[in-house]
Amino acid sequence: MCLMVKCALCVHLIYSDIVQRSREELKAIRETNPGLKPTLAIIQVDIPADFVSTQIGLNVMQICLPRQCTEEEVIEEILRLNEDSRVYGIFLHLPQSFLSKSVRNAIKPQKDVDGVSDLNVGRVVLGDQRDGFASPVAGAVLEMLARHGVYLFVYMAVLVGVEGPLKATLQFLLQNNGMMVQTCQWSSKHMQKQIMDLDVVILLETDHKGLPPTWLRPGVAVINLGSALMEVRSNRRWIQEQQYQPWRLRPLKLQPLSPVPSDIEISRAQTPKPISQLAQEVGLLPEELEAYGNTKAKVHLSLLNRLQHQPNGKYVLVAGITPTPLGEGKSTVTIGLVQALSAHLKLNSFACLRQPSQGPTFGVKGGAAGGGYAQVIPMEEFNLHLTGDIHAITAANNLVAAAIDARILHEATQSDKALYSRLVPSVNGVRCFSPIQMARLQRLGINKSDPSDLTPEEVRAFVRLDLDPEKVTWQRVIDTNDRFLRKITVGQANTEKGHARQTQFDIAVASEIMAILALTDGLADMRARLGRMVVGSSRNGQPITADDLGVTGALAVLMKDAIKPTLMQTLEGTPVFVHAGPFANIAHGNSSVLADKLALKLVGEEGFVVTEAGFGADIGMEKFFNIKCRTSGLKPDVVVLVATVRALKMHGGGPNVTAGVPLPKEYINENLQLVTDGCSNLKKHIQIAHLFGVPVVVALNAFKTDTQAEIDLVCRIAEASGASAAVQCHHWSRGGRGSVELAQAVKEVASQKNHFQFLYNLQDSIVEKIRTIAQKVYGADDIELSPEAQAKIDYYNQQGFGALPICMAKTHLSLSHMPEKKGVPTGFILPIRDIRASIGAGFIYPLVGTMSTMPGLPTRPCFYDIDLDPVTEEIKGLF
Amino acid sequence: MCLMVKCALCVHLIYSDIVQRSREELKAIRETNPGLKPTLAIIQVDIPADFVSTQIGLNVMQICLPRQCTEEEVIEEILRLNEDSRVYGIFLHLPQSFLSKSVRNAIKPQKDVDGVSDLNVGRVVLGDQRDGFASPVAGAVLEMLARHGVYLFVYMAVLVGVEGPLKATLQFLLQNNGMMVQTCQWSSKHMQKQIMDLDVVILLETDHKGLPPTWLRPGVAVINLGSALMEVRSNRRWIQEQQYQPWRLRPLKLQPLSPVPSDIEISRAQTPKPISQLAQEVGLLPEELEAYGNTKAKVHLSLLNRLQHQPNGKYVLVAGITPTPLGEGKSTVTIGLVQALSAHLKLNSFACLRQPSQGPTFGVKGGAAGGGYAQVIPMEEFNLHLTGDIHAITAANNLVAAAIDARILHEATQSDKALYSRLVPSVNGVRCFSPIQMARLQRLGINKSDPSDLTPEEVRAFVRLDLDPEKVTWQRVIDTNDRFLRKITVGQANTEKGHARQTQFDIAVASEIMAILALTDGLADMRARLGRMVVGSSRNGQPITADDLGVTGALAVLMKDAIKPTLMQTLEGTPVFVHAGPFANIAHGNSSVLADKLALKLVGEEGFVVTEAGFGADIGMEKFFNIKCRTSGLKPDVVVLVATVRALKMHGGGPNVTAGVPLPKEYINENLQLVTDGCSNLKKHIQIAHLFGVPVVVALNAFKTDTQAEIDLVCRIAEASGASAAVQCHHWSRGGRGSVELAQAVKEVASQKNHFQFLYNLQDSIVEKIRTIAQKVYGADDIELSPEAQAKIDYYNQQGFGALPICMAKTHLSLSHMPEKKGVPTGFILPIRDIRASIGAGFIYPLVGTMSTMPGLPTRPCFYDIDLDPVTEEIKGLF
Repeated sequence: MCLMVKCALCVHLIYSDIVQRSREELKAIRETNPGLKPTLAIIQVDIPADFVSTQIGLNVMQICLPRQCTEEEVIEEILRLNEDSRVYGIFLHLPQSFLSKSVRNAIKPQKDVDGVSDLNVGRVVLGDQRDGFASPVAGAVLEMLARHGVYLFVYMAVLVGVEGPLKATLQFLLQNNGMMVQTCQWSSKHMQKQIMDLDVVILLETDHKGLPPTWLRPGVAVINLGSALMEVRSNRRWIQEQQYQPWRLRPLKLQPLSPVPSDIEISRAQTPKPISQLAQEVGLLPEELEAYGNTKAKVHLSLLNRLQHQPNGKYVLVAGITPTPLGEGKSTVTIGLVQALSAHLKLNSFACLRQPSQGPTFGVKGGAAGGGYAQVIPMEEFNLHLTGDIHAITAANNLVAAAIDARILHEATQSDKALYSRLVPSVNGVRCFSPIQMARLQRLGINKSDPSDLTPEEVRAFVRLDLDPEKVTWQRVIDTNDRFLRKITVGQANTEKGHARQTQFDIAVASEIMAILALTDGLADMRARLGRMVVGSSRNGQPITADDLGVTGALAVLMKDAIKPTLMQTLEGTPVFVHAGPFANIAHGNSSVLADKLALKLVGEEGFVVTEAGFGADIGMEKFFNIKCRTSGLKPDVVVLVATVRALKMHGGGPNVTAGVPLPKEYINENLQLVTDGCSNLKKHIQIAHLFGVPVVVALNAFKTDTQAEIDLVCRIAEASGASAAVQCHHWSRGGRGSVELAQAVKEVASQKNHFQFLYNLQDSIVEKIRTIAQKVYGADDIELSPEAQAKIDYYNQQGFGALPICMAKTHLSLSHMPEKKGVPTGFILPIRDIRASIGAGFIYPLVGTMSTMPGLPTRPCFYDIDLDPVTEEIKGLF
Repeated sequence: MCLMVKCALCVHLIYSDIVQRSREELKAIRETNPGLKPTLAIIQVDIPADFVSTQIGLNVMQICLPRQCTEEEVIEEILRLNEDSRVYGIFLHLPQSFLSKSVRNAIKPQKDVDGVSDLNVGRVVLGDQRDGFASPVAGAVLEMLARHGVYLFVYMAVLVGVEGPLKATLQFLLQNNGMMVQTCQWSSKHMQKQIMDLDVVILLETDHKGLPPTWLRPGVAVINLGSALMEVRSNRRWIQEQQYQPWRLRPLKLQPLSPVPSDIEISRAQTPKPISQLAQEVGLLPEELEAYGNTKAKVHLSLLNRLQHQPNGKYVLVAGITPTPLGEGKSTVTIGLVQALSAHLKLNSFACLRQPSQGPTFGVKGGAAGGGYAQVIPMEEFNLHLTGDIHAITAANNLVAAAIDARILHEATQSDKALYSRLVPSVNGVRCFSPIQMARLQRLGINKSDPSDLTPEEVRAFVRLDLDPEKVTWQRVIDTNDRFLRKITVGQANTEKGHARQTQFDIAVASEIMAILALTDGLADMRARLGRMVVGSSRNGQPITADDLGVTGALAVLMKDAIKPTLMQTLEGTPVFVHAGPFANIAHGNSSVLADKLALKLVGEEGFVVTEAGFGADIGMEKFFNIKCRTSGLKPDVVVLVATVRALKMHGGGPNVTAGVPLPKEYINENLQLVTDGCSNLKKHIQIAHLFGVPVVVALNAFKTDTQAEIDLVCRIAEASGASAAVQCHHWSRGGRGSVELAQAVKEVASQKNHFQFLYNLQDSIVEKIRTIAQKVYGADDIELSPEAQAKIDYYNQQGFGALPICMAKTHLSLSHMPEKKGVPTGFILPIRDIRASIGAGFIYPLVGTMSTMPGLPTRPCFYDIDLDPVTEEIKGLF
């Protein structure tokens, strides 16, 4: 064995091998990931360099700084590259004097491909190969020694050169491979003795004076690392990071107390994980996260692109039977289920929830973050401003409203010419149409781009939307329960010159923009939908849109952050997306398509996304299938149908259940007959789900007053009625552990094949579609259209809106339109009072009865109990 | 010299020394920092331990986990302690098998007092003693060797034991001190040879089998680290961190282009530093920061407590002469000045700016983030939702409004008894008053706490606020320019049973809650001010407050995040606080007291805080002194008075300046006469500042049409008029470099003594205070009160509000009340049309003329040019 290594030659041989290997690796990676274009950034000072990197087909960005540049300038470059998402790695090809601690550590550890930062050296030193970025040079040395038969356990080496990351890294890698290593500096007095004593000498720098040949005893191996450039910087790690990452979820321990404390007490007793940590655990990259404080963060939509080849997980919908006015706990079931799946069955899962309106938080008791030991935490963040999405919607919605009234006023008070010269002003002597005005010209069929070319008729058509004040359908919104805004007169100040008109404010979540946020699949689509929103019609009956008002771009700008779902966590530290919360009354009442899509990628093929639909299954689930799934193209795997003994007893003929009034004794004592009779409602909802070809798991949300006989009865009937499984769950009092049985049932049923189908075709007529829902889902004999509704249908057909899906606005308290009819009403005709359209969101909504779009405050709103401790900053009295 | 160390004894001797030293250090630290109570957390598994820590007077928190606990459980404890702000350090007293990589690295590096995390080991390995936390054990070994005369350059040592942080740390510390070190494991075959060869043997663990005595050659030193507990964990570093930190600001390089691009182009061309990095540079602790995305963050008020003993920096106010309708650039001067101070003169400085209303962003062109090369970036974040403070104010303001109208309705439609049983309901058979109801009873003079004890009269007094609908002064707000809401009728729906009334919406920044946010000094004070807000009066003339409505706690909860100032940065990477933006029309138009206070601590004694007052100096500066400084107790050091040649020419008799119309030629060509004449206005403003005893630096904001003769003339007149200095500045076209001269002048003048005083005493009568301002500041001969104003004064005096400061609501376009009177109007009587009060904010505001509190949209709002690129996510057309 020849230990006398001809270093430079040898090193180069090894390099060519490594280059070849890297090239092949990169080629393979590129073939499977055509979208990835990783770039290596190299910062150098005046050094001509011939980088191997380019040989292997890497994109290289070379940044040359002048020799007299300062440390600050180097750091500034590094910081810029840290934030540049194209750059996967930063390599400092700098003289030793530039490699200060500040410079080395300015590089983000994940971009430190040369292993020079303190953290990466620490990782290597402590033997961590997986997360550590050791310098590839160190790897090459090890490989070289191995190839030349230098048995690390036998020989001893000395590293000669200045202290630094490479020396430390090499030393530890060699030692960790069993070699005895000494180090010395060029100035050391020991140097000659060490070199003469040991078997392997590794010289780190080029700029040394060289070793006297007499110091080298025969057989010693000398490796000179300074004589060659080694720029092979693997981007394998970066590419791996871009791939789907298996979860490393660390659930939070939950020790439920009995009796169960208040929701806020439970929430406060649990310390949430830093949101960045949770994000890392579920495979999000740091650059995909925008923290909003320490417990919530927005997630970038770019994730969808990064994981586009990753198969979706299982898609689970939580819906409910027809509820009592108290609600039957769909949110808690949803949260309990993911706590059970993730924290107990160790199956990746994500809950996707709606963001609640802030209005009711201060009105009538009742949070939306779940409750008991199945909650999203911190619950006060969930229930208050969150990341400001609803505020953004309010701002966008009301900008449209302000634009409408201002436009009506301006058109009424100005000549065509005055309007035209203001709308298309001369700026520095030049007049031109803005892009959104060009789009309006095109819609008007005017193919001109020079403002001076328009005929007076064309000018008139262009400047006058001619909105009919009586036919403005757009309302202002506010996220407060303010009943006095249900009907108002605006424009009564003198400055509005008599253009007063009657209108209303709705609660913010009733805005069409909220429905758009929930249905959109990205920025471009959202912008297009916002532009399509119809705000009223002109005096000659043409629909007027946000695009006509010129406001679309501003709306998109206002909504640019709201489009990103917000990441939070459950009490057991499992991930939750909170995103969008369209009013279930007049919209589709489901959380966002985007949150579901992101979650389905993140959980992985074997994971579960549990999303919730508002109201009973006849409304929320029907819309989930026919509207949301149709829009998203996603296919649900299982429906979890939530039932309570309380609601079933009501359907079986029990007395009225009213909020704020103690429950009648029928609901407290065992009553098997009421339960048996009430199961008709449960059975009907199971059948509705089966209409869509989706299997059902019934989740009986157990209350402490339920008897075992009642519970067993419900489960028996549910399974007899076609449910694939029916289980009781105790998440409220026990957390995820109380829902393990449900989680197992869901897991099992989700693995079965299903045959999802829509209930109607979009090409059916509007009447046909409404009738199908009324008959098949609600059990009506037929529908009956008011003249108003019929006229609207004609109008929508004429405008080309006939092929939109239907979003019924019906009471959730009965399968019929009559809230007092419990169980399974039959023999009724469903009256369609009126029909409206949300063209931007993309649905027609028939009104069955009167829908309130603005809640009020009760005599004693719950704000009487809410307070903030100014010292501890703790919130009191929130639910 | 005896190298044979009786290890255990020796080690203990060294320890007692160290303990003694630590105790003395800690004592000294405690004496100078009485507020600090650092706690060391020790996680142990079943090991009885006697910790030295307690001997030195440290607070110790011992967490004992069962021997069968899992790695997850250990990590969960660590994560909890990471977030516990009392705990400065975490020490793992665990068996080797528990010290996995995940466990070690779960500890936040700054709490890793034993130096076991990868990052801290990396720091030590690379020779970083300042930031690194080496295990104190390693330090003790070095000290021991030194005391026993083991010359590290001469002897060689072997470390025996398993690989880990301690071994790596010790090895490098010894090597860095010149010692030759080998390592070996217990199982190593080399072990005997190594031990017999070398001079010093260091044994790392207790649980080894011991060394055969025959291996030890005479004279060898054996140090056995396993035989003693070494729990001295210094908290010196933690205590140092709690102290004021000198800045390590890294400015961003700016290379201004000519011609100057659009504001958004300039903003977008600069990559902002990650906000967490900027925060670190200016001495904020990570736990004091709540990031909102990557470019803005809220800062915790706890900073005020941490730095309570730190002297304030210099306090600089930027005000302006009477402006043209185009504005004269106070914001750009403010930003240019801090860019010059921090990035060019290397003096710590902070700009404190108001958050702009979002309404005008979409209405009339004009951002508030500065402009040209003196901007806050990213400017679109600054101008849009920011961190949601204005949205929070809107929500809080409108909750009060909803509560008012709902209460009027409920009182009108219910008997005393019904109201009482709803307001104080029986819950589980128990009736009790909530704390805020108890407070109302006290205000009513009813000293009872049992609801059943109240007499019918007392019940009536308690349940009926008896608000007079005609005398409700509280308005709803919205952050949109919606002119149709200037006068509206609410409550017209049937459900409101005929209780319609006329009211209005104001722009959100006009809310009293905004003024409170700007003036408060903390959560408790904010809560109290919110409670004191008067919303109207009862039919018998008593003021009704938010406390009476029971809504105070809810308002505080809604505002709990808004109270924290938002950190951003300028184009040159210097820090900016954005916080509050009360309407200058009807409120005091200054940014927040809290932001100024935080900034004054952070910049340090030699640093500068530059804050801006709205409108001309007659309004903004007067209110800054008489209202803001009175509330905060802060004393200003310098006033920077912004002037432009354009505005001076207007005051000298130039033609009207109108937005959107090209400037007349007088403003484009040199005209020294107009300038000379117009300087009367400048001189008057200098005199106003001198009334308060504060020196003035005039900043002439240079435009490219200004001639050198004009500029020189202004500077000459300004200095002759008493300005301490007068300089031109070019920040708009050149950034901070263009304002260096201004910065130098400010620095110099700030070091002079000044004699700040208020203009009036609070105990003066309301009329007296108004007259003082009118005569001394505006130059009026006298004031004239309308009968309405006189009646209000009587009412406020009667209610005990007479001692509040005065916040004049006057046009900013003239020193007088007549916008068309330029220069220095004289011989006028100031008419006081009406007087209102913001009792929560704490001022009386006389109305001089009509003040618009709701802007409108023009015919062509600037949203026509605003758009979002769906692919790049870049915003177009925003200014």
